[in-house]
Amino acid sequence: MPIEPSRGHSEGIGEALFPPSSVLRIPNLKRWGLKVSIIGATGYTGAELVKILLRHPEVEIETITSQSFAGKKISEVYPRLSTGLVCQSLDAERIASSFIFTALPHGASMEVVGNLYLRGKRIVDLSADFRLTNPLVYEKWYGVAHKKKNLLKQAVYGLPELYREKIKGARLVANPGCYPTSAILCLAPLLRYNLIKEDSIIVDSKSGVTGAGRKLSLKTHFPEVNENLSAYQVGCHRHIPEIEQELAKLAQKEVKITFVPHLVPLNRGILSTCYADLKDFLKLKDLVEVFEDFYREEPFVEILPQGCFPQVKDVVNSNRCQIGLTVDGKRRRVIVISTIDNLGKGASSQAVQNMNIMCEFEETTGLS
Amino acid sequence: MPIEPSRGHSEGIGEALFPPSSVLRIPNLKRWGLKVSIIGATGYTGAELVKILLRHPEVEIETITSQSFAGKKISEVYPRLSTGLVCQSLDAERIASSFIFTALPHGASMEVVGNLYLRGKRIVDLSADFRLTNPLVYEKWYGVAHKKKNLLKQAVYGLPELYREKIKGARLVANPGCYPTSAILCLAPLLRYNLIKEDSIIVDSKSGVTGAGRKLSLKTHFPEVNENLSAYQVGCHRHIPEIEQELAKLAQKEVKITFVPHLVPLNRGILSTCYADLKDFLKLKDLVEVFEDFYREEPFVEILPQGCFPQVKDVVNSNRCQIGLTVDGKRRRVIVISTIDNLGKGASSQAVQNMNIMCEFEETTGLS
Amino acid sequence: MPIEPSRGHSEGIGEALFPPSSVLRIPNLKRWGLKVSIIGATGYTGAELVKILLRHPEVEIETITSQSFAGKKISEVYPRLSTGLVCQSLDAERIASSFIFTALPHGASMEVVGNLYLRGKRIVDLSADFRLTNPLVYEKWYGVAHKKKNLLKQAVYGLPELYREKIKGARLVANPGCYPTSAILCLAPLLRYNLIKEDSIIVDSKSGVTGAGRKLSLKTHFPEVNENLSAYQVGCHRHIPEIEQELAKLAQKEVKITFVPHLVPLNRGILSTCYADLKDFLKLKDLVEVFEDFYREEPFVEILPQGCFPQVKDVVNSNRCQIGLTVDGKRRRVIVISTIDNLGKGASSQAVQNMNIMCEFEETTGLS
Amino acid sequence: MPIEPSRGHSEGIGEALFPPSSVLRIPNLKRWGLKVSIIGATGYTGAELVKILLRHPEVEIETITSQSFAGKKISEVYPRLSTGLVCQSLDAERIASSFIFTALPHGASMEVVGNLYLRGKRIVDLSADFRLTNPLVYEKWYGVAHKKKNLLKQAVYGLPELYREKIKGARLVANPGCYPTSAILCLAPLLRYNLIKEDSIIVDSKSGVTGAGRKLSLKTHFPEVNENLSAYQVGCHRHIPEIEQELAKLAQKEVKITFVPHLVPLNRGILSTCYADLKDFLKLKDLVEVFEDFYREEPFVEILPQGCFPQVKDVVNSNRCQIGLTVDGKRRRVIVISTIDNLGKGASSQAVQNMNIMCEFEETTGLS
Repeated sequence: MPIEPSRGHSEGIGEALFPPSSVLRIPNLKRWGLKVSIIGATGYTGAELVKILLRHPEVEIETITSQSFAGKKISEVYPRLSTGLVCQSLDAERIASSFIFTALPHGASMEVVGNLYLRGKRIVDLSADFRLTNPLVYEKWYGVAHKKKNLLKQAVYGLPELYREKIKGARLVANPGCYPTSAILCLAPLLRYNLIKEDSIIVDSKSGVTGAGRKLSLKTHFPEVNENLSAYQVGCHRHIPEIEQELAKLAQKEVKITFVPHLVPLNRGILSTCYADLKDFLKLKDLVEVFEDFYREEPFVEILPQGCFPQVKDVVNSNRCQIGLTVDGKRRRVIVISTIDNLGKGASSQAVQNMNIMCEFEETTGLS
Repeated sequence: MPIEPSRGHSEGIGEALFPPSSVLRIPNLKRWGLKVSIIGATGYTGAELVKILLRHPEVEIETITSQSFAGKKISEVYPRLSTGLVCQSLDAERIASSFIFTALPHGASMEVVGNLYLRGKRIVDLSADFRLTNPLVYEKWYGVAHKKKNLLKQAVYGLPELYREKIKGARLVANPGCYPTSAILCLAPLLRYNLIKEDSIIVDSKSGVTGAGRKLSLKTHFPEVNENLSAYQVGCHRHIPEIEQELAKLAQKEVKITFVPHLVPLNRGILSTCYADLKDFLKLKDLVEVFEDFYREEPFVEILPQGCFPQVKDVVNSNRCQIGLTVDGKRRRVIVISTIDNLGKGASSQAVQNMNIMCEFEETTGLS
Repeated sequence: MPIEPSRGHSEGIGEALFPPSSVLRIPNLKRWGLKVSIIGATGYTGAELVKILLRHPEVEIETITSQSFAGKKISEVYPRLSTGLVCQSLDAERIASSFIFTALPHGASMEVVGNLYLRGKRIVDLSADFRLTNPLVYEKWYGVAHKKKNLLKQAVYGLPELYREKIKGARLVANPGCYPTSAILCLAPLLRYNLIKEDSIIVDSKSGVTGAGRKLSLKTHFPEVNENLSAYQVGCHRHIPEIEQELAKLAQKEVKITFVPHLVPLNRGILSTCYADLKDFLKLKDLVEVFEDFYREEPFVEILPQGCFPQVKDVVNSNRCQIGLTVDGKRRRVIVISTIDNLGKGASSQAVQNMNIMCEFEETTGLS
Repeated sequence: MPIEPSRGHSEGIGEALFPPSSVLRIPNLKRWGLKVSIIGATGYTGAELVKILLRHPEVEIETITSQSFAGKKISEVYPRLSTGLVCQSLDAERIASSFIFTALPHGASMEVVGNLYLRGKRIVDLSADFRLTNPLVYEKWYGVAHKKKNLLKQAVYGLPELYREKIKGARLVANPGCYPTSAILCLAPLLRYNLIKEDSIIVDSKSGVTGAGRKLSLKTHFPEVNENLSAYQVGCHRHIPEIEQELAKLAQKEVKITFVPHLVPLNRGILSTCYADLKDFLKLKDLVEVFEDFYREEPFVEILPQGCFPQVKDVVNSNRCQIGLTVDGKRRRVIVISTIDNLGKGASSQAVQNMNIMCEFEETTGLS
């Protein structure tokens, strides 16, 4: 019987609904809140987690850690976060919360997650370390040995639209990458229903700059990005094996895609334009229906009407994914375009969606 | 024997190199300057033409016209243009120059061009009105009847890399669209040498906002574009038939492409990412050589070394096109990426390149 | 006894806390919410009001009107607004809500407000029509006759930090302009305590482009604003008399300021840099204390520590105002810098703050 | 008798105009060009110098140095620079050119300049090391000892509008800072003619991000600058003593100013809004005339007509400074607004203007 400990008004509710005597028994609704910790809270995804969780009515943030800012209030690093939370240095032994978000760089996450897992925590890991089920693929693309191979079997890929039931019971959820989220949501209905040629898939993605993180680099130096536009890691981006793994599961056969990401001068947002050849000709009307059916129950995926295509500004600062599609009749090719916020559905708010599912909160809690 | 009347110092050169007597025969190098007019000088492409031609050592701008600003100095509309030129209202009868640039909207250009052509002018038309050789295709995509069908046969498509010889003798050059320039330069070597499957071509283009012109629209209102990213006219943009016409000539068979343009928040620049399936497997090294050979003599097309891809900022404010490519071996697919300035090689500086060729000036004059 | 009709979970709470029988009597918690209407809901400030009020736990939006989009869902105009609300054409007779926000252009608002006021509504007017108490000043600066002069006496200037008590009992609140909010909050402590020379005040403000509204103009056309920076209405902006009126009340004597607004290429945010000469020398430490004392109880005004100055990104999408200050000892001059979101504390969220006060809701409800 | 060694076409001209025999006497027009070197060519100001000098008809770049990119072609660092020039590591002994631009960080420049000066070179130094005539002031504001104090007397402050005659004969020119250039040009006529109170001057400047250089910093990380706006080094920026030194010379008495710089999200451009109290009331018309007279002969300073104010986009990529002004009659205060390109008139193109003067080239050569 979860009762919503609404921020700000909790005392008012308590007073209104319970007689004074009951106050002794239920002195503080906050006690009922789930205590969570965030490992790596001062990167862009970590800070976005803090922002979302501060507003989440079922959750209390207990501990946040940061290597670079240990000892500082996070509000000194991100003044818009109105909280007194102080960054700790990471000491897995001392983290009491039962639910943990890890927002560490790839490679650095696996040992921390392993340690926390052994200590019985439930974890959403925002790194890539537990997304690829095959450690050899991980090692090939990420260039480091995987030290927690046995944990890979426990990890559930945290895309709720595909794996909601598994996520419910999971103790370790590997939160998807931003590009994979945008691409897989475009292609899932098409592959599940065997509508497209598996070898014809092209994903052309465009991302805002927060996707590259807070680490300094000439590539993200303002005068180098502003008034510029470029492709990068053309055909060799690390999100390729992640997308292919998930598409293969949907298609029940190997799928190899062509993927080109682009850097565009805005802060937040990904737009992915996906192209694939249809096996049989399908009218746009019917294809739109396929997508609508596939995502009918999904609170965060919206299929736009025929002729409409999504814009990044309509999904920024949200957990939404909008999808528009069309058929290029001449070539029997389908074009599917999705937009997400790379820090939202592409990272932190999707992590919270996963937590909501794992903890049996209403799935949209704190996310709308 | 063209002599360069270098801006600023031309008299000095004359004095220094020729004895006084020769002055009679070559009295003033300026007199030799080609007089040109610009019809529609206050749109973005028109103003860019003025900017380039003011610096062009062989040319003198005689007349500029503008419907919206007739009677005003163009420096009142574009203060960075340091010239006393005053916008005239358009009166084709009164335009004395023998060489004319028309930078009018599609549909509005054909009659003006027809009139000027009859009066013996040489013309570079920056509208779409003379780009499509088949008037039925024009009418289908632009929704207006073509009133100068007979002139279509005279018009040469002004992409120097493909039609330099024809441009030399042309009286009417149809200056290519911005997206077509970026796409055709990517695909020409592949189709000319029969290397790709003609039905596999996808062009995913990203453009800065000046490409939409100076006309007001909610879509180009600052807060609607900034921090946003969107596709538009998905699979139905008017540049499709133009690209397909030129690719068909290269392939010597019909070619149908999939084309999706995107609007990105920067002022100038187009990046086009082109995908196509190779007929036979080719090593990247060999493909790069094909491109290098194809464009070896071209002063404005630069093939980047293997592993390098172009950025918009390196071509903005220039007539350059940079091209990088790679092969996605898994799928035997080639990816070719080009960058141009949509107002440069995509419009006004290419128009000047065409003029240089038509008038037998050194092709790079005023453009480097 | 306000009970929070929390969005999303209201039914759950109802079920949990009340026996089934009570459901008949309190069938829908929504009924308890304050019903409000928004006149002019599709401009930027109107849409921001809709966004904030959709999340406000005490409020239900009943009617929204729009001249341009009557008959359309507002989610068609602003897809990020997840609501089925349909824009009505304005018919003051048919607006049932007891509380109304008017977000109409200056000049157009006064008659609508007059009509609604007569019909007993409580109103927050976001236009300038009721901000200036002297109708002659209004007419001079806005160039139109004031048709509701008698109502001017009823209107309370809606800056809660100065007029909270009056706002409580007000039936008509004139919501302050964006620049005035940012400037007055900087200067109020200094004038109230008689610390600065009244004739020395300079306000140099920089604003994002949404401040200019959604109406198309070449000045807000993307390529004209992006990579640009300019001052406008130098020394003659309409917010001058509004700022001077409020500063005069604080100083209890006439105050004339110099005010220069600037347009900068970002969507949201105002940064105002205010300069004034101190009457007597004061240490920075003491001045900071003056500001801290003045705003100690204010939930939305934050005085930064010595040596810190505010950034727009820390207040965007909030009702916060951050203030940093320093003393230029050489010249005995104080520099006070404030940041607000022009659509937040500068318009719509401040309007909601005013509603909260007028309706005796917790002042921060729906705003944190 | 300077003859223009036109870029690209010099051989062609030679061939055309001279018989083979004359080639012995004038074998290569390039030989006549001034050979220059650029120390520190890969920062933003250094690269801008390369860009401008490559187009300069009187100059040949002989040597460029770069600590970070020694051994690399500068076209690898800045692909838009079409030149084969290779960066050298700095070895002052080996620099043969008689004319040198030093574009090193403050503190690092003085020894290099000292060394080059001893070896008889003529130098334009773009650092701050030789701008302040009083070494104690330098040491106070820059925090390092000045090691070439005796050279300070030789250095001429390179603002041609004030010191053209001295620059002509100078061997060492200290190129002004970007903010000082924009501020001094606004205030010079007012102080020279004793029109304003010296203790009333406020300079509120707004700068694009290239002003902060190419060095990485969180403050110039794209997501931190974009959609943001902030003041920095409020009242304590290092350009203050430089501005005050020059204003004092104009006023012939000590001048202390208040100066606040702001960082705005664009690449290039500075807009400075200057405020000062008039000693006696002056009509705007008369003040504009004062400015027009003061700058009448200046090729790069443009006084806008009454009611017009400059925009950054009209001066970007140029050596121009535009100035607009007004009088705030209520307060007898003058407001003067200037715009420059911080990498243009604020740095590199002004350095070239200084070179033109020093070498008795036409002052505008290569700059229009």
